[in-house]
Amino acid sequence: MTNVDTPLTNADFSQRSAQATTNDQFRLRWSPRSMTGQALTLAQVQSLCEAGRWAPSCFNSQPWRFIYALPDTPQWQPLLDLLMDVNKLWAAKAGALVALVARTHFEANDAPTATHSFDTGSAWMSMALQAQHMGLAAHAMWGFHHDQAADALKLPEYFSTQALIAFGHPAPAEALPDPLREREVPSPRKALSELMFNGAMG
Amino acid sequence: MTNVDTPLTNADFSQRSAQATTNDQFRLRWSPRSMTGQALTLAQVQSLCEAGRWAPSCFNSQPWRFIYALPDTPQWQPLLDLLMDVNKLWAAKAGALVALVARTHFEANDAPTATHSFDTGSAWMSMALQAQHMGLAAHAMWGFHHDQAADALKLPEYFSTQALIAFGHPAPAEALPDPLREREVPSPRKALSELMFNGAMG
Repeated sequence: MTNVDTPLTNADFSQRSAQATTNDQFRLRWSPRSMTGQALTLAQVQSLCEAGRWAPSCFNSQPWRFIYALPDTPQWQPLLDLLMDVNKLWAAKAGALVALVARTHFEANDAPTATHSFDTGSAWMSMALQAQHMGLAAHAMWGFHHDQAADALKLPEYFSTQALIAFGHPAPAEALPDPLREREVPSPRKALSELMFNGAMG
Repeated sequence: MTNVDTPLTNADFSQRSAQATTNDQFRLRWSPRSMTGQALTLAQVQSLCEAGRWAPSCFNSQPWRFIYALPDTPQWQPLLDLLMDVNKLWAAKAGALVALVARTHFEANDAPTATHSFDTGSAWMSMALQAQHMGLAAHAMWGFHHDQAADALKLPEYFSTQALIAFGHPAPAEALPDPLREREVPSPRKALSELMFNGAMG
């Protein structure tokens, strides 16, 4: 990781014990809300989207599209306004907002694809890990006004919203308003034994 | 990466030029089909699932479940038999098969979740990158008999199949049968300029 001494890595990881050997980027990635408000550069947003671009997809259909906005530009407020108030509260200090949208039908024949959400989730994970490598916070949200998104983002036919992501320079938990401050820790996970099954779940 | 001199990293990446600076794990990850048939150890499968376990999800709902089978065990053939013939052809030489299934409704209240496929896609990406770090091939498939999966995998109510993944020790492209051999290269991607939009798509 580029920056080892930031609120990202200084967080309390006591709820996150490894249960098997892996590259530590997965356990150390989490979804902070506290950001400084400093804008990302366009080059940084391109690096994030570049990571997502290499994700795998069904028939290499690449259903993902990245609609971004930077603070202090005319594109910023319309994206921010899509968020529910509970998210707008902290995401206003993001350094970039990226709406992740997916083509729901194959481009070749306009037949519906079964995997556009799954595939776009892969792209999001790549972006989140890339942010981590850049010392940036990344937090994906479902809590936005999907019904207003098609108009605000001028989505063509066959495109649907998958997530709205806040990327930003990490700030201390103390910078958050009270109800959010105590939630600013890496969240726990189910035990591996609850998630892995040999051959069948039943 | 653990092994730098394998068919994974010796492949022809000429269709994959970087367009922005990123950690190179994303561009170098691809989806080979040629595998040696050597079984993975249970510890290796646990490392793959551990990476997936740390993925983010809506309300930390963790919808993903990993149903695995190792070669030469009673669980192997039923999972392999779920695959369409075109995939069975090469995936028979995988070192592990993992059916990735998702809970479609929240555990707390059985309300439908909108993001179970998206979230499970994030877990898959983490597994794919972890495989890469272990010098293993990973290839996710949608081409399997979803209608038979609920019975074969004994899925409880509210679980649905998202992907069937072949993990394995990489083998040279020459080991594949003819129609697949020439497709054994890292696939290209759309240009970043086709995927990124400032504020709106239209």
